[in-house]
Amino acid sequence: MELWYTEKQTERFGITAKIKRTLHTEKTEFQQLDMIETEEFGNMLVLDGMVMTTEKDEFVYHEMVAHVPLFTHPNPKHVLVVGGGDGGVIREVLKHPSVEKATLVEIDGKVVEYSKKYLPTIAGALDDERVDVQIADGFMHIAKSENEYDVIMVDSTEPVGPAVKLFEKGFYEGISKALKEDGVFVAQTDNPWFQQDLIRNVYSDIKEIFPITRVYTANIPTYPSGLWTFTIGSKTKDPLEVSEDRFHDIETKYYTKDLHKAAFALPKFVADLLK
Amino acid sequence: MELWYTEKQTERFGITAKIKRTLHTEKTEFQQLDMIETEEFGNMLVLDGMVMTTEKDEFVYHEMVAHVPLFTHPNPKHVLVVGGGDGGVIREVLKHPSVEKATLVEIDGKVVEYSKKYLPTIAGALDDERVDVQIADGFMHIAKSENEYDVIMVDSTEPVGPAVKLFEKGFYEGISKALKEDGVFVAQTDNPWFQQDLIRNVYSDIKEIFPITRVYTANIPTYPSGLWTFTIGSKTKDPLEVSEDRFHDIETKYYTKDLHKAAFALPKFVADLLK
Repeated sequence: MELWYTEKQTERFGITAKIKRTLHTEKTEFQQLDMIETEEFGNMLVLDGMVMTTEKDEFVYHEMVAHVPLFTHPNPKHVLVVGGGDGGVIREVLKHPSVEKATLVEIDGKVVEYSKKYLPTIAGALDDERVDVQIADGFMHIAKSENEYDVIMVDSTEPVGPAVKLFEKGFYEGISKALKEDGVFVAQTDNPWFQQDLIRNVYSDIKEIFPITRVYTANIPTYPSGLWTFTIGSKTKDPLEVSEDRFHDIETKYYTKDLHKAAFALPKFVADLLK
Repeated sequence: MELWYTEKQTERFGITAKIKRTLHTEKTEFQQLDMIETEEFGNMLVLDGMVMTTEKDEFVYHEMVAHVPLFTHPNPKHVLVVGGGDGGVIREVLKHPSVEKATLVEIDGKVVEYSKKYLPTIAGALDDERVDVQIADGFMHIAKSENEYDVIMVDSTEPVGPAVKLFEKGFYEGISKALKEDGVFVAQTDNPWFQQDLIRNVYSDIKEIFPITRVYTANIPTYPSGLWTFTIGSKTKDPLEVSEDRFHDIETKYYTKDLHKAAFALPKFVADLLK
């Protein structure tokens, strides 16, 4: 018997992956959680029918969410990750020696639990002593935080289910308040082939709140279209003006100092979305 | 009834696209040719079971094959496209006013015929008076050419069927001979997620022949992994040292002057393949 996982990334297009077996399937309090073992991409976490991360290509997303804002900030000490219960962003955050505390606020404890069990190379860093894992609503956490974080990263699902609020302007206003004066924020903002309205709206909202707003991209094979965007909002620091001596060597598989800048050179049709 | 086209891009992973209908299907002298109308990507040309081009995302591949070498060369007059029977690369080549003659050598006349019929926005430029379409073996054409072309572009299928010879070192040696002294050559060289050996071997072969050899990437949603590589070989001109005044405005949807350089900033795991 051959088993294939098929995800309709739009109503009319999708990906399909041969699987060895289903490791876990559960309707949690917040979403449908499936963990499957695929042949091409290793273990794969699927939430509400959408690939969140896989062992083979996870490094792209996690490195690009983390290192671009962390090198943009001159001296990040306290970092907040909203969502990201698989732990991959936290693993990358901890590669920065300036970071004293990394807080993860994930709404669904089951994501943390099953990531630790089936994605240990991704979730292992959650047990580090610099990490504070809170199973709580990220929206509420932001609402009650003030002048507290150097860098905030929003590692959410698509804007369906529990993540809908994380794509609203009020949330970005809360992030601005939760950041310190020289704070930097980044959010994953979906793909420019099938979600053009989303990117346009989110960029417009963030731009009204943050003096410096920029979009960058990375290639993630298991995400729709293979091209993912990230939107960075900053009060004073420009990701394109990081001084050479700010960069230090870190172990990566995707991110490089050159790519830090090159990732902001957008395909023309993406740049046109932001006009 | 719902019809879905599914392509196994590897034995274990693929894409699937909802289709309205099959427009044409034929076993030509050289390969299986299918033209289908998809809902997400418009009309789609499939050769030997692999997506070659679609109306929605074709601009990425065609612009990035053409404009990077054409702007690298200071004054391209005579251009050769090997393969590329859909006409998309030729359409982009003709946007450069210096080009006096663009020769297309496509082995399969049926590709030209059905691209003209079902992909008119891509193939329309094949009727331009500067274009010389030859239905012939590109390998043989290269073998008999000497000191003739300013830029040669290899727009082949994957290295199966008639294209196998177009990935061999002898072919690249022929290209070097067919180019003028300041000539520039580019080939599509597949994706770095599933075809690492191919990229490594092709890069190594080209590097032995051309003093300047560089790899760049672009995002193509309907190609395996969404990340495509192109390898450029040049006798004297470096694609990273194009002077600002060489660039002129052309109408594009993906290529920009900034992306010309940024596309050479490789993800670390891709750069590591080339070491």
